[in-house]
Amino acid sequence: MIKKNFFNPKSIAVVGASRKKTKLGFTILKNILDYNYKGKVYPVNPKTKKILGRVCYANISQIPIKIDLAILVIPAKIAPIILEECGRKKVPNVIIISAGFKEIGGEGIVLEKKICEITKKYKINLLGPNCLGILDSVNNLNASFAEGMIEKGKVAFMSQSGAICTAMLDWAHLNDIGFSRFISLGNKAGITEIDLMKFFARDKETKVVLAYLEEISYGQEFLRVAKKLTKKKPLIIVKAGKTREGQAAISSHTGSLAGRDEGVVAAFRQTNTIRANSLGDLFNLIKVFNKGIILRNNRIGIVANAGGPSVMTTDAISESSLRLAKFTSKTIRKLRENLPITANIYNPVDVVGDAMADRYELAMETVLKDKNVDALIVLLTPQTVTEIEKTARAIINNSKKFNKKLIVSSFIGGKKVKPGIELLQKNNIAHFEFPEETVETLNMLYRYCKDRSKKEIFPQVKLLRSQKDFIKGIVAKNIRRRFKQIDFLESLKILKYYGIMTAEYYLVTSKQEVKKSSQKLGYPVAMKIISNNIIHKTEVGGVEINIKNDKEAVSAYESIISNVKKEYPKAIIDGVLIQPMIREGKEIIIGMKRDPQFGPLIMFGLGGIYVEVLKDVSFRVAPVAKEQAREIISEIKSFKLLRGIRGEKASDINSLVDLITKVSQLSLDIPEIKELDINPAFVLSKGQGYKVVDVRFII
Amino acid sequence: MIKKNFFNPKSIAVVGASRKKTKLGFTILKNILDYNYKGKVYPVNPKTKKILGRVCYANISQIPIKIDLAILVIPAKIAPIILEECGRKKVPNVIIISAGFKEIGGEGIVLEKKICEITKKYKINLLGPNCLGILDSVNNLNASFAEGMIEKGKVAFMSQSGAICTAMLDWAHLNDIGFSRFISLGNKAGITEIDLMKFFARDKETKVVLAYLEEISYGQEFLRVAKKLTKKKPLIIVKAGKTREGQAAISSHTGSLAGRDEGVVAAFRQTNTIRANSLGDLFNLIKVFNKGIILRNNRIGIVANAGGPSVMTTDAISESSLRLAKFTSKTIRKLRENLPITANIYNPVDVVGDAMADRYELAMETVLKDKNVDALIVLLTPQTVTEIEKTARAIINNSKKFNKKLIVSSFIGGKKVKPGIELLQKNNIAHFEFPEETVETLNMLYRYCKDRSKKEIFPQVKLLRSQKDFIKGIVAKNIRRRFKQIDFLESLKILKYYGIMTAEYYLVTSKQEVKKSSQKLGYPVAMKIISNNIIHKTEVGGVEINIKNDKEAVSAYESIISNVKKEYPKAIIDGVLIQPMIREGKEIIIGMKRDPQFGPLIMFGLGGIYVEVLKDVSFRVAPVAKEQAREIISEIKSFKLLRGIRGEKASDINSLVDLITKVSQLSLDIPEIKELDINPAFVLSKGQGYKVVDVRFII
Repeated sequence: MIKKNFFNPKSIAVVGASRKKTKLGFTILKNILDYNYKGKVYPVNPKTKKILGRVCYANISQIPIKIDLAILVIPAKIAPIILEECGRKKVPNVIIISAGFKEIGGEGIVLEKKICEITKKYKINLLGPNCLGILDSVNNLNASFAEGMIEKGKVAFMSQSGAICTAMLDWAHLNDIGFSRFISLGNKAGITEIDLMKFFARDKETKVVLAYLEEISYGQEFLRVAKKLTKKKPLIIVKAGKTREGQAAISSHTGSLAGRDEGVVAAFRQTNTIRANSLGDLFNLIKVFNKGIILRNNRIGIVANAGGPSVMTTDAISESSLRLAKFTSKTIRKLRENLPITANIYNPVDVVGDAMADRYELAMETVLKDKNVDALIVLLTPQTVTEIEKTARAIINNSKKFNKKLIVSSFIGGKKVKPGIELLQKNNIAHFEFPEETVETLNMLYRYCKDRSKKEIFPQVKLLRSQKDFIKGIVAKNIRRRFKQIDFLESLKILKYYGIMTAEYYLVTSKQEVKKSSQKLGYPVAMKIISNNIIHKTEVGGVEINIKNDKEAVSAYESIISNVKKEYPKAIIDGVLIQPMIREGKEIIIGMKRDPQFGPLIMFGLGGIYVEVLKDVSFRVAPVAKEQAREIISEIKSFKLLRGIRGEKASDINSLVDLITKVSQLSLDIPEIKELDINPAFVLSKGQGYKVVDVRFII
Repeated sequence: MIKKNFFNPKSIAVVGASRKKTKLGFTILKNILDYNYKGKVYPVNPKTKKILGRVCYANISQIPIKIDLAILVIPAKIAPIILEECGRKKVPNVIIISAGFKEIGGEGIVLEKKICEITKKYKINLLGPNCLGILDSVNNLNASFAEGMIEKGKVAFMSQSGAICTAMLDWAHLNDIGFSRFISLGNKAGITEIDLMKFFARDKETKVVLAYLEEISYGQEFLRVAKKLTKKKPLIIVKAGKTREGQAAISSHTGSLAGRDEGVVAAFRQTNTIRANSLGDLFNLIKVFNKGIILRNNRIGIVANAGGPSVMTTDAISESSLRLAKFTSKTIRKLRENLPITANIYNPVDVVGDAMADRYELAMETVLKDKNVDALIVLLTPQTVTEIEKTARAIINNSKKFNKKLIVSSFIGGKKVKPGIELLQKNNIAHFEFPEETVETLNMLYRYCKDRSKKEIFPQVKLLRSQKDFIKGIVAKNIRRRFKQIDFLESLKILKYYGIMTAEYYLVTSKQEVKKSSQKLGYPVAMKIISNNIIHKTEVGGVEINIKNDKEAVSAYESIISNVKKEYPKAIIDGVLIQPMIREGKEIIIGMKRDPQFGPLIMFGLGGIYVEVLKDVSFRVAPVAKEQAREIISEIKSFKLLRGIRGEKASDINSLVDLITKVSQLSLDIPEIKELDINPAFVLSKGQGYKVVDVRFII
C-alpha cells in the first residue's frame, strides 16, 4: 500500500546523483532542490564530495537519518545491490529511474525479477524502473528529470509512457492546468495503477484521476478498485493498444468475437471508468472534470452570436445524451425585453452578430438563472464589433456568480479570438476549439455523474460442499486425462448445481429404451451421440434432429450408432442423448472466454444469424451484477425481438438476467474452465424461463 | 453562369458607400481600396461628394464607364429600385450585402422575391442578400466587410453562415492557410453553391473547394455538378442541421427510416464529396488537401521518438482504410546501421527519446525513399534533448526533397512544441495536435483519391410511346380522382413496362375461376382483395395466405368477399388476386421516398425484422448507377445472408442490381409518385432472378 510519505517524504536520497549537468543524476537532484521542497535531500555518490552545495554520501547506509524515499539513478546492473542497501536501511519508498530492465528483454528480464524479489523481501514500495519519476504540487516536489514544475491543481496523472508524461506536462503549461500528483509508472515492477488508484481514492488533494495505460495489470482487482474509486472521483483513462494482436486468436465461437478491445470496453463500462479515446479527448476531459462540478441533469443552454455554430451545437446535442434546455417563461420574457428584435430568445439564444459584451452578459445571466438549465455553452465568432476579451471576462464573472452550474465556452476562430481564449484558460474556464468537442465532453461528464449513483446486486448461488467437491473432481479428472472438453452429461450436472435450467433429456443405450424415452419427451425429438472420444458430433453423423415418430426414432438411433462405429471404431460410447425439439421461444447464446487482462468475459446474443452473421453481441466482465446482466441483454440491436414485436409475447428477460449472473459466478468459481459456450438455449415467454439445450466447457 | 468578371471585375461601384467609419458602406469601400486591387472603384451616394478621396456619384447610372460589379450596402426596402438601376446600366454582377430579406420572414420574403424577378429580367448574377461579400486573393480584392485580407492559396471557400466566414478567416490567419476565393453566400437568392461549384471546376486558381452549408439548393443538380467537380478537385462540405426536424415525418415505412440525414449521406457518398463532420474536421482536412498531393496508395510510414504515441497512431491506422507500410529490406538495413540498438527499425520507427534532429532526419529520409511508403507521419514528444525547431526544419527539408509524397506531423505537447508547430505551419506542412486526427485526415484523402477513378454505368430502360402514355394516363386519372395510391394491377403493369419481374398472378371474379387459377399457379397460394376503395386489405379481412388445396381456396375466396362486403358494403370490388406463396429465396424490400433536397431516395434492405427491428438498410439518391446499386446491397449488415451462409447458394445479386437501377429510373421518370414500396420481393438463387410480390405507389 502506498503511504503518504511516498509523495510527502521528509527525507530523500538521490543515489547516483552527479555533478555533470548532462546526467540525469544531476537533473533530478537539481529539480528536487529547485522548487521549494521542504524536506531533507541527500545526494549519494562515492566519487564526489559535494553536489549543488550538498554534502555527498558514499552510500545510502552512511546517511545519518532515516530516509523516506530513495531515488536510484544508477546503472541497471548494480540496482539489486543498491536496492538491498535501501532495504537494509529500511527505506520504505524507492524510485528506480534507470532503464535496462524488462523493456530490453533477455538479461533485463532477469534483472527486473531480481529487483521484485528484493522489494518483496524488504516490503519496499517501488516505482519504476524505467520511469521519469514523480512530481507533487502539494509538497513542491519534482523528483523527476522532467523540466519545470507542475502547477497546483486537483488532478492526479499517471502514465505508462514517459513520452506521454512530457507531452502532458508541456500541454498543461500552455493550458494552465494544474496537478496534485504526477507519476511516471515505467515498467510497473512494483507500484501499479491499482496501487495508485487506491491511494487517490483516499487522497484529499486529488479530485480527478487520469491515466495513460498500455496494459492493465490485474484486471479483477482493477474492477474492484475502479468501482470504488469512481463512486468518489472520476477516473479517466487513455487505453492505448486497442488493436494490438495479442496471442493467436482462440478458434472458438466466443473467442473469435471477444477478441481485442471488448474486455476493456466492458470493464470500463462496468466500473464507470471514462475512456478517453485519444489524447485529444483526454485533454478535453481534463478541462471539464477539473472543475469538480457535478452535472446531475442534462439540460443545456446555449448563448451564441451567430446561427451557424448554434446549429452545429444543436446537432451535436441531439446526437448525445444531453438535451436542449427548455427555458421558463420568465427567462423568455426577460430575453425578449432586453435583446434586439432579430435575436433568438429561445434556446439556443442568438444574441446576433453585433452583440457587445454587455448583451452577452445579460443573456448568460438570464439563462444561468433559469432553473431548467444545468449547464451553459457560450459560443463566440469574431464579428466586426465583437468584444472578445470583454466577453471572456463576462463569462468568468458569471462562472463565479453561478459556481454550481457548469459554464463552458467555444470561441471559434484563430488569431482574433486567441487573447479571449487565453483569458478564459487562465481563469479555469473550460474552453474548446469547436462546439462538437464541447458537447461530447459535457456528455461524458453527464454520463459519469448519472452512472455514479447506480446500485449493483450480485446474486450468489450457494453450492453444497458435496457439489463443490464433485465439480472439483470432474475438472481434475478431465485435466488429468488431458481432455479438452468436459463430458456433456457432467456439464449438464454442473449447470444444474448452479440452478441453470436445462432441457429435459434421456440417455439411452438400447433400441428398446429409445421409444419409451422419446414418447415421454414428446415428439419431435433430437438425438446426439455421447462419447468422450467424439467432439465434433455432427461431422461423424452423430446427430439427428426433427425425429417425428417411433419408427424414425429407432432408425435414427441405429444410424447414429452405426455412423459413429464406422468413423470411430474404438470410441467408447456412453449412449445416445434424446432431447425434445424445442420449437417455442427464442434461441440465445451465452459465451465466456477468459480475457488476458480482466478474466471471464461474458458474451450475450441471439442465436443463429444474429451472432454469426450480424455479430450482434455484447460483453461484460465477471462478476456481472444483475443490473449489468440486464444491460448486456438490452444492448444488443435485436433486443426488440426479446421484448416482442408484432403482438408477440415478451420473452422472459428476468430469467435471462438470472442465467447470466449464474454463468458469471460459475466462470469465477471454476477458473479451470477456459471457455464456456451455452449454444443454443431457448428463452420462453415471460414467466416461463429458459431452457439450455447444449453447453460446452473447454478446459 | 458565373463569369470571370465576378471575381475579377475591372470596375466596381459601391452603392451606399459612406464616410462614416462605423458604417458597412465605409468598411467595404476601404477594404476594396486597401489591398492593392487594380480595377476602378466608384462610390455611389447622393448625399456625399467624396469618400476616401474618391469622387462620389449620386447614382450608378451616372458613372461614366461600364461597371462589372455593383455592391449594394443600402436599406433592404430600396434594394429593388437600385437593382433595377443596375439592370438598366447592364451591370452583370451584383452583391447585396444588406440584410432584411427572407431571413426576417413576412415582408422580407416579398422583397426577396421582387429582387429575384429583377435579377432574372436583367440576367444579373446576384450574390446575397444578407452576406459579407467576397474576397479574392488572385485579384487582391476584398469586396466584403470582413477585416483583413486572405493570404494567397488554392483553396476556395463558400459559406452560408457569415459567422463561419469570420471564424474561418480568423483561423486561417493563425494557421497560415491561404485562399483563392472566399464567398459569403448569404440567402442564396441568386448565386448558389452549385453555380460556384461549376465555376470552381474550371477555375485554375482553385484546387480544393470547401463549403459550409445548412441546406443544399437543388439536389439533383448538385449530384450532377458535384460528380463532375470531384473528378477534378476535392469538394469538402460541412453540412450543418443534420438533426433539424424538418416537416412532420411521413408515416410510411420508407419514410420513417429515410428521415433526416440519409439523403445527404447518400448524395455525398455518391458524388465522392467529402463530408467534414465538424469545423474541427474541416480545418484538419484543409491542411492536408491544401497540398494538392494525391494519395494513390495507403501505405503509411511512422517516425516517432516515443512508443506511446506510435501505439496510438497504429491503433488509429488499424481502424481506418490505411495500412502500416512494410519496409523493404534495404530500408531496414539502413535503419539498423544508423539507429541506436534500442531503436525500433520496423514500422513504426522509434528513434528513441534521446534523438536529436539529425537522427530524425536520417530516419525520415530512409523511410521516404522506400517505395513501399506512400505517406509519412512524423510524431514528436518534447523530451529533454529533443530539438524541436531543428526537427521541424528537417521535416520541411524532406518535404521539399520528396515532394510527391505526403508528410504530415504531430508534435504532441503545448508550450515547448509550439515554436516547432508554428515553423511547420509557416512552411505549409500539415500539422495536427494529435495522432488520431492525423490518421483520420489522411484516411479521408486516401478514400477520396481512390473513389475518384470509379466508373459509373446508368442502364436505361426504353419505354414505348404507348407505355409512357399509359402511365401518364394512370397517374393523371388517380390524381384527378384524389386517390392516394395507384391501383394494384395498374402498379404491376408499370413495373412490367420497366422490365421488373413480378410474381405470377390471376385476378378472379367468381368461385369457378378460383380453383382453375389456383391449380395453374400451384398450391399453396395467397389471395387478396383488389378494390380501389380498400387500402388496408389485411385489416378488413381481405387477405388469406397459405391456402393449400381447392377446398381451402374456395372457402378463402368466399370469406374474403363476404368480409369485405360486410366492412365496406359500397366498395367496388375488381376481384380477388391469387398469387403463389413464394417459399424460396430471401425476402427483400426496396423503398423510395422523395428527399426534400435530393429527390428520390432509394432504400434497400432484407425483409422482415432486418428492416423493421434492426433498421439494417442503406440508401442512395436516384439516379443510382449499377455500381452504386451494388454498393447499396453490400452495405447492409445482413449482406452475408445474400452471399449465402452455411453452404447455401448465393442469391441473385446481379438481378437485384438491375431491379434497383430500374426503381431509380422509374422514380425519376414519374415524379408524381411520392413514395414507392416494393415489399416484399423475393430474390432467388444466382441466375434465377427475383419476384416482386407486392408494390405500393403513393401519389
